[in-house]
Amino acid sequence: MKKFVIIGADAAGMSAASRAKRNAPGLEVTVLEKTTDVSYSACGMPYNIAEPGRDIDDLVVRQAAVFREKQGIDLLTGRLVERIDPQGKCVRGTAPDGREFEFPYDSLLIATGARAVKPALPGFNLPGVMVLKSLADGRLIKQFLRSNPVRKVVIAGMGYIALEMAETFRSLGIEVDLVKPRPRLLPWMEETLSGVVRKTLEQHGVGLYPGTEIDGIERAGGRLRVTCPDIALDCDMVLVAIGIKPESELAAACGLSLSVDDSIAVDLRLKTSDPSVYAAGDCADAYHVVTGEKTWIPLALRANRAGWAVADNVCGRDIELPGVAGTAVFRTFDLEVARTGLTADEAAAAGFDPAQVVIESRSRAHAHPGSSPIWVYMVGDRKTGLLLGAQMVGSEGAAHRINAPAVALHSRMTVSEYSQTDLSYAPPFGPTWDPTLTAANQLLKLM
Amino acid sequence: MKKFVIIGADAAGMSAASRAKRNAPGLEVTVLEKTTDVSYSACGMPYNIAEPGRDIDDLVVRQAAVFREKQGIDLLTGRLVERIDPQGKCVRGTAPDGREFEFPYDSLLIATGARAVKPALPGFNLPGVMVLKSLADGRLIKQFLRSNPVRKVVIAGMGYIALEMAETFRSLGIEVDLVKPRPRLLPWMEETLSGVVRKTLEQHGVGLYPGTEIDGIERAGGRLRVTCPDIALDCDMVLVAIGIKPESELAAACGLSLSVDDSIAVDLRLKTSDPSVYAAGDCADAYHVVTGEKTWIPLALRANRAGWAVADNVCGRDIELPGVAGTAVFRTFDLEVARTGLTADEAAAAGFDPAQVVIESRSRAHAHPGSSPIWVYMVGDRKTGLLLGAQMVGSEGAAHRINAPAVALHSRMTVSEYSQTDLSYAPPFGPTWDPTLTAANQLLKLM
Repeated sequence: MKKFVIIGADAAGMSAASRAKRNAPGLEVTVLEKTTDVSYSACGMPYNIAEPGRDIDDLVVRQAAVFREKQGIDLLTGRLVERIDPQGKCVRGTAPDGREFEFPYDSLLIATGARAVKPALPGFNLPGVMVLKSLADGRLIKQFLRSNPVRKVVIAGMGYIALEMAETFRSLGIEVDLVKPRPRLLPWMEETLSGVVRKTLEQHGVGLYPGTEIDGIERAGGRLRVTCPDIALDCDMVLVAIGIKPESELAAACGLSLSVDDSIAVDLRLKTSDPSVYAAGDCADAYHVVTGEKTWIPLALRANRAGWAVADNVCGRDIELPGVAGTAVFRTFDLEVARTGLTADEAAAAGFDPAQVVIESRSRAHAHPGSSPIWVYMVGDRKTGLLLGAQMVGSEGAAHRINAPAVALHSRMTVSEYSQTDLSYAPPFGPTWDPTLTAANQLLKLM
Repeated sequence: MKKFVIIGADAAGMSAASRAKRNAPGLEVTVLEKTTDVSYSACGMPYNIAEPGRDIDDLVVRQAAVFREKQGIDLLTGRLVERIDPQGKCVRGTAPDGREFEFPYDSLLIATGARAVKPALPGFNLPGVMVLKSLADGRLIKQFLRSNPVRKVVIAGMGYIALEMAETFRSLGIEVDLVKPRPRLLPWMEETLSGVVRKTLEQHGVGLYPGTEIDGIERAGGRLRVTCPDIALDCDMVLVAIGIKPESELAAACGLSLSVDDSIAVDLRLKTSDPSVYAAGDCADAYHVVTGEKTWIPLALRANRAGWAVADNVCGRDIELPGVAGTAVFRTFDLEVARTGLTADEAAAAGFDPAQVVIESRSRAHAHPGSSPIWVYMVGDRKTGLLLGAQMVGSEGAAHRINAPAVALHSRMTVSEYSQTDLSYAPPFGPTWDPTLTAANQLLKLM
């Protein structure tokens, strides 16, 4: 019987395991997970933490018992894989009881995900200095909030997680300061749009300290003190949300090729540099559909989809994934913030000749009650006319609207072609010209 | 000086007039409008009528004075054009003072729109039997509601306008019955989805009488009575919303070719069968991007876009419009109802070999508060793999979500390609797999 071994039991790993068993019930599928958590919605953690009465385990999408008993997957938790032997085609590690284990494989999937980065600065290992990547992290944060009177949190970082958690903490009545060394909030975002986000954060009482280095964290009178060159911020908890990095050490140690940001390099079939070893999820790279180049954009949909594609390939179906457009959305307070494709800077770096435009439109029709502003940023290539990317901010209608330009990126549409697409219109949902069409019309004038 | 004459001063006509003047300030642009209303948001009328304190003229997008004084457009209202002379290149008609007028043209745009259909049955001309197409219609309805104690309205028809107005009347505390001869509510809609709409209407106390012929309307004790073979519905007002037809008589009378549903036939440049005469807006046909065939889908975005394209062509820019996907959305009560492309029946009629699927998904992520069901219908072609159409119903997230498949139709994507697109995900806005991706994944299994 063929053996398919999977390292990691979250989105990519369990998608692959489930689909492989559906494809080929006779395949022996073994999943080795170092923690005791499997198949949970990591992206849901900020919203779960906002509800103290709710169990973090509500985020588990499917229980381990279901995978084991109903799907026939040999799902083993507490199994830290320490070594991959590509020549001997087996993985080795240590079980919770201290005994070594070894699993031979015909096909291997590395789905080890990514981990939150903590800077090597004094005090970042103090109690109350937390990260939020795994379900265990979320559990610790909920426990900490339950057990300690947290009046104020300092968040290091100003990315998605930082801004989602700023909303969460404010909703719990906790003061929030955001601190980061680099001067720009959301550096990938066009500045008019990021200015809208900044204003919303300020309106919700979030303290913003961009361009502020952190020297370290120290204890001060039973609380924590984040020390910076010109300021010290006292708080009861620090959330470190400065970024994540791929868990690719295991892959690197056995000689697999690495890629952008040390993610594991995979081809269109999700194969690593060893033809029996696949990688998928937050640890693996992808092709960008706009540049055609490798990129590392770790997001949940890609992880699920890549898991499926690995399972199909393991079962002989020969599936290629076209790549990612970098489509992402998050909410912070009452704002929807969305992006797809490239910024003008990214486009220039990739060899395009970008033109860019920012327009302000409305979320509903002329004269329709409840309308609010919506900003669209759009980038096109002067040389080819191609649409290269879009961003959007607004209190309604940004999250799903970004998908129309995202599909256009996949099909290599020009800005002109996009401007002629037949998009939906009714007064409660937008102006006659969808804001992305208005942006395309304006962008065309510059191209 | 070249003369550009436009018949009709709503979306298509005024878009063309404004753009032509921007393109070529020296062009002499004359607009002849039979009513006194110009450039208003017809789609906004149901929402304006829902607010009795609001003036219907709030829906005017730009005042006639602005067109005349700021834009230099010769905008003449109360000018009913009665005859086009393509040989002599002029239009003739009667002014409000009874005098005949004549305007010569180099280029002519027919933007006469469409009119509401009233059946030739007894009583449809009684006071209180209304239609809703023009701003004048909306004004009459508001006046009627102000001047009469309207406790109940019978709406003949169950299309967009009927369902939007059902919401409007209910919001004003008025009882509503919907009556139509054909058995299906929204006959273009997949039945699971239209069942959701039906349930919502019933929950909001709307009486539904599908499959019910109307024999006529009569006066009965100071009210109106809609008489049907087996039932009589007493009410204070009847709204006839059984459909619209293109205002193409003027075009037909001067020998221009007509097309689907008697709309005026135009080519990709919006030219009619006479090369000096264009048609745009609700009176003109279009190519359907999925079938490549002529269709008549009168909607606001197309009217605006076609007006621009006519202006560009009149000014020598040579613009082709690719066509329409039939993307439409409306709201009825708390439901968003959206469609794009073809139904399976339409696909079969157009020579495709359709496969279809209906899925139920959620508007937000697993375990996210406030999530509601969302239904997606999707159609693909077994022969080519092409995506052919989609429909959606849900209380949130349908209106903008339809635009992703709409763009895919424009770029002739296969269902497989669509299923691999990188769409946005965050827990407040949808599941990891966007409902349209889940539909595509399921549809692929049938193809």
